[in-house]
Amino acid sequence: MVSQPKDIVMTDRLRIAIVGASGYTGVELARILVAHPRVDWIAAVGRSSVGRKLADDLPSLRGVVDLEVEAFDAASLARRTDAVFCALPHGQSAPIVDELRGHGLTVLDLSADFRLRDREIYEQWYGPHAAPERLAEAVYGLVELSRERLKTADLIAVPGCYPTASILAVAPLLRAELVSPEGLVIDAKSGVSGAGRSPSRAAHLPECAGGVRAYKVGGAHRHIPEIEAALSEISGVALRVTFTPHLVPMTRGILSTVYATAANPALDAEACTEAARALYADSPSVVVLDPGASPDTLAVRGSNRAHLSYAVDGRTGRVIAQAAIDNLVKGAAGQAVQCLNVRFGLSEGLGLPAVAVWP
Amino acid sequence: MVSQPKDIVMTDRLRIAIVGASGYTGVELARILVAHPRVDWIAAVGRSSVGRKLADDLPSLRGVVDLEVEAFDAASLARRTDAVFCALPHGQSAPIVDELRGHGLTVLDLSADFRLRDREIYEQWYGPHAAPERLAEAVYGLVELSRERLKTADLIAVPGCYPTASILAVAPLLRAELVSPEGLVIDAKSGVSGAGRSPSRAAHLPECAGGVRAYKVGGAHRHIPEIEAALSEISGVALRVTFTPHLVPMTRGILSTVYATAANPALDAEACTEAARALYADSPSVVVLDPGASPDTLAVRGSNRAHLSYAVDGRTGRVIAQAAIDNLVKGAAGQAVQCLNVRFGLSEGLGLPAVAVWP
Amino acid sequence: MVSQPKDIVMTDRLRIAIVGASGYTGVELARILVAHPRVDWIAAVGRSSVGRKLADDLPSLRGVVDLEVEAFDAASLARRTDAVFCALPHGQSAPIVDELRGHGLTVLDLSADFRLRDREIYEQWYGPHAAPERLAEAVYGLVELSRERLKTADLIAVPGCYPTASILAVAPLLRAELVSPEGLVIDAKSGVSGAGRSPSRAAHLPECAGGVRAYKVGGAHRHIPEIEAALSEISGVALRVTFTPHLVPMTRGILSTVYATAANPALDAEACTEAARALYADSPSVVVLDPGASPDTLAVRGSNRAHLSYAVDGRTGRVIAQAAIDNLVKGAAGQAVQCLNVRFGLSEGLGLPAVAVWP
Amino acid sequence: MVSQPKDIVMTDRLRIAIVGASGYTGVELARILVAHPRVDWIAAVGRSSVGRKLADDLPSLRGVVDLEVEAFDAASLARRTDAVFCALPHGQSAPIVDELRGHGLTVLDLSADFRLRDREIYEQWYGPHAAPERLAEAVYGLVELSRERLKTADLIAVPGCYPTASILAVAPLLRAELVSPEGLVIDAKSGVSGAGRSPSRAAHLPECAGGVRAYKVGGAHRHIPEIEAALSEISGVALRVTFTPHLVPMTRGILSTVYATAANPALDAEACTEAARALYADSPSVVVLDPGASPDTLAVRGSNRAHLSYAVDGRTGRVIAQAAIDNLVKGAAGQAVQCLNVRFGLSEGLGLPAVAVWP
Repeated sequence: MVSQPKDIVMTDRLRIAIVGASGYTGVELARILVAHPRVDWIAAVGRSSVGRKLADDLPSLRGVVDLEVEAFDAASLARRTDAVFCALPHGQSAPIVDELRGHGLTVLDLSADFRLRDREIYEQWYGPHAAPERLAEAVYGLVELSRERLKTADLIAVPGCYPTASILAVAPLLRAELVSPEGLVIDAKSGVSGAGRSPSRAAHLPECAGGVRAYKVGGAHRHIPEIEAALSEISGVALRVTFTPHLVPMTRGILSTVYATAANPALDAEACTEAARALYADSPSVVVLDPGASPDTLAVRGSNRAHLSYAVDGRTGRVIAQAAIDNLVKGAAGQAVQCLNVRFGLSEGLGLPAVAVWP
Repeated sequence: MVSQPKDIVMTDRLRIAIVGASGYTGVELARILVAHPRVDWIAAVGRSSVGRKLADDLPSLRGVVDLEVEAFDAASLARRTDAVFCALPHGQSAPIVDELRGHGLTVLDLSADFRLRDREIYEQWYGPHAAPERLAEAVYGLVELSRERLKTADLIAVPGCYPTASILAVAPLLRAELVSPEGLVIDAKSGVSGAGRSPSRAAHLPECAGGVRAYKVGGAHRHIPEIEAALSEISGVALRVTFTPHLVPMTRGILSTVYATAANPALDAEACTEAARALYADSPSVVVLDPGASPDTLAVRGSNRAHLSYAVDGRTGRVIAQAAIDNLVKGAAGQAVQCLNVRFGLSEGLGLPAVAVWP
Repeated sequence: MVSQPKDIVMTDRLRIAIVGASGYTGVELARILVAHPRVDWIAAVGRSSVGRKLADDLPSLRGVVDLEVEAFDAASLARRTDAVFCALPHGQSAPIVDELRGHGLTVLDLSADFRLRDREIYEQWYGPHAAPERLAEAVYGLVELSRERLKTADLIAVPGCYPTASILAVAPLLRAELVSPEGLVIDAKSGVSGAGRSPSRAAHLPECAGGVRAYKVGGAHRHIPEIEAALSEISGVALRVTFTPHLVPMTRGILSTVYATAANPALDAEACTEAARALYADSPSVVVLDPGASPDTLAVRGSNRAHLSYAVDGRTGRVIAQAAIDNLVKGAAGQAVQCLNVRFGLSEGLGLPAVAVWP
Repeated sequence: MVSQPKDIVMTDRLRIAIVGASGYTGVELARILVAHPRVDWIAAVGRSSVGRKLADDLPSLRGVVDLEVEAFDAASLARRTDAVFCALPHGQSAPIVDELRGHGLTVLDLSADFRLRDREIYEQWYGPHAAPERLAEAVYGLVELSRERLKTADLIAVPGCYPTASILAVAPLLRAELVSPEGLVIDAKSGVSGAGRSPSRAAHLPECAGGVRAYKVGGAHRHIPEIEAALSEISGVALRVTFTPHLVPMTRGILSTVYATAANPALDAEACTEAARALYADSPSVVVLDPGASPDTLAVRGSNRAHLSYAVDGRTGRVIAQAAIDNLVKGAAGQAVQCLNVRFGLSEGLGLPAVAVWP
């Protein structure tokens, strides 16, 4: 009747640590893992707040989590845990991940550092890479498209938020060759939490509440190569996308609206919907809405679900594919836990919030 | 390390129904119960949408809940379930509850209909009562103050959102006689979801986003007798409160700021905090913050926690007691499930979200 | 030093009426006209609230506007006023406008009823037209593109909000033949006030605050023919656009992000910016930002300005043209007053708010 | 018909400068002064951005204001202007004001530095005062209560935002002796712009949108002595207030809810309303609503109006007085211009926005 996985028989438990626990991705990992029936959260690793209670800086953890922030010590983590979530900014992450892997730990890295296989492309967009020899080892953690490979992966590169929404939306169309791989336009709208926890003018409430604006317009956002790599692999063509991110006055959520050219003039929304339902038939985190329904980021807020839908504009021959996710859950922490579940043989949706906090 | 209760050994499971499933309280019950490890949600009862999928009107349930809305049939519910959550407006609830009780079902009523023991006071504020003979049977479900009585209750009146926040904040002060029962002023701030799901000008985004305003000023809000009854019982004095609710431009949350007169001039915030920690020592849903910290509704959004804090203004001899809750969780659905847990001998916090969706 | 027009010598004054004064467009007209140095606002015409004070339903007018709502009487208006703003829904507007014109009044119609010259296209999108013989008489009031014709117009069709933003953004590119007229994609983001004043689930704060979603996806929005007509006229080609509107959790503002294919591979943002500055050189309501700056709806909130900017993605050969306006001002009431100014020989920006209410 | 003052015959014009032009109060002064029919805005003085265009940092001024930020030079300002608005933080303001006054300029200071007559009290709350000898010279600029004195004032201390709302609300009650001066409780709710333009965690959208919280609880906010001084003067009693400010998730607006004890049990809302209407009969910026109506900060957003209302709770003998203002307008920049108008013999409301940007 109800599809939420409930784990009945408990056996052994995974022990995990979070490095970078006091950012938004870290606290979202905390929210999920505290309620995960098969995980023991052992350690919170930080830098500036070592020795303080983690909950001192994270009001939602008060009275729930009693961990103290500890300094990074890979050997200690290796003795005490099975897997480590690394929620650090790109650049800072690679050396830490390298060290953790050196101690044999399974690492789920939420930064961009291991998402691109091609070092040259990485360095073009992000600058020098601190551990390029580990790039080949990493598996891209968009579970719906790389479930098999993840089962044995020990370095998992959890996808970016924009790529997650954008790739999930358009992958079924490309795989079924319903649209041309040429000329994809991705217009994405994000909540402000995507900018992270450091106060900035861009996220200062008086200057962003009540307004919407684009940023990094004209092919400048670092998620572009990640999207292109994944979609090129699916379509078998080295494609390029026009990608424009926008900042919307809300905290959480990404809506990605993708415009593609229909491969044939008779294509309709039903065919697109069927292709998506076929591709995601075994994916509990993806819900393909009926044609006519619009994904709403509010309907996935706090949950690990992606809501997709497809429309066709017969007048212009365009397919409009949409995906809504919570950027901090399916776009980050939730997806990381989904990867963990797959990696360790648990039910894929175990411990992941299925129902959004709506309204 | 982490206080979230995790149920290890599963035995039998409770079967429950929700009457009034498509309102905000109903959908919040759904969110919680879908993830509850000891509950099977069997039936969703509605009126206008009988025969439709519940998820058709509730986008967060798409792909998760497959229930069809059914018409009310107490006999059928009695055969299939152990307990029923009734999430109807006041007035509509009483006859339904009466019938469910007539079939022997345990009922958790989220309306105001059974919160006041005194029929006369009820009818003064709400109009005629449809089942006054059941008033004596009902137990007021503010778990922290009536845990024992709830263990055997079969008609539980789940408290209102404003009363929950207001009573929790001031109860420790009255019980420890730290403040005078005279002259309490309660200034409460609520998110817009408290007004329910029916579109109205008061909740029309353009007319409420970006502004704050009071309503029902001057002793006119129906939650007043409920607050007075509970606080009078605690203090042993028939007290009255000045209560002013405000509408704040957000969806969820209630912050109740209570002003009380210190019983002696040496009273400080530490003494108030200790009194509260003593009273709520065994209450997993209440977190008493250190003096100086301010409860924030965002820090409890989506969780069943109440955050309390105490300050004293030595210049004026006032104690300022504050409580923040999520009006739809600890102020409604979560509290109802907390009552269910207590009633059926489960761990009090089982299945209840402990960590807020923050940010 | 400061470009806001200030009228120095007062001579005669225009007398105007507003039909449909209690909607959002009406109240915005009120805000502007109350402060306009050359206008006397004589009459507020309504239907359901005839006889009541206009300010009773519009809290921002309390203590400022003392007008009583009167029933529609074209003859009376003709005796007392020079021009009438008609702020009614499409369909309701046409017969009223027809009658006002029959009495010789200059009419500024804010509905869609006279925006399309082609009756057949109108009826395809909107249904039967009540005064088709007046279609030829109407002048489309996008001042920046039809200033000359407006000087003698007596029936002015004030453009829609989405068309205003979208046409202003892309017109310079088409006129200078910098982009192909084929394959335009318009992804527009609107505040909730665009949906009007009637409470609805779509504008119910709990269901739209905190989320973003598209609507009328797949070529279904009625502003499409209006955009296509204007852009076809500019480009000399009968073009079609893919248009997707989105609802953003804010009250005011439209951001239109337009994707066009560069006509030649060497095109850069500077050339696009120059073309726009050339076209709008004499247009006080349009500000073309430097390349790299992003229009922000907050930076035009409450003002009659449109902020434009241009970027080019050299990797994909796309131009990204953006325009931000306040949908109720430059997208409705302000633009109507701008038309009035032009029609009656006043300075184009007279009485129009130049500086946004920012933050 | 319409009460907005419109200046008919222009004669000479005031020349003004703004010191501290790039903060929120500065940009709001800019918005008002650009449209003011009797003012020429000559100079924008700053520190970190000297030599840059003011509009570079203030997107709403782009295309409207072409001023370059200049360094502070009192002698130069004295040659070029008649009056200076000083919009600096407290502490920084006093020496600048002192120097400007030394050059004979009329100064309107928006900081706290000259609001308290009593140096000792100032220093207790704010620290050392840099120009205490000028305290006696300053006139407190709450126009409605000190209009006469302002006509000849050359150093005007523009009131704080919380004091403006709180004093306006309760002054009529104290003056008419309808309430006791003892035991006043002021519960104030403010938008986030009150915290200024510097990014901080408190104003970081993800951590303040969607939540409400108090701050500086227990008699700690610096506006307390300002409120007490003004109300003590009115009542003739050295009174104290319990004051708790709250942060509400919106940009602009303050709602002050004041609880007072009725002086006699027969007092009703009508008597309070009449007292307020009598006191503010000649005050164009104050609107006293009918009993039963609630002031809404949205209904005054962007305008210089204060909306007041009064209710009485007969059950508890409390009067509830409320005031809503825009903290950046009537609570800062608008009030400063209102002072300027009074000081220079202009119509009190000249150039001040009367109608709010609603919705």
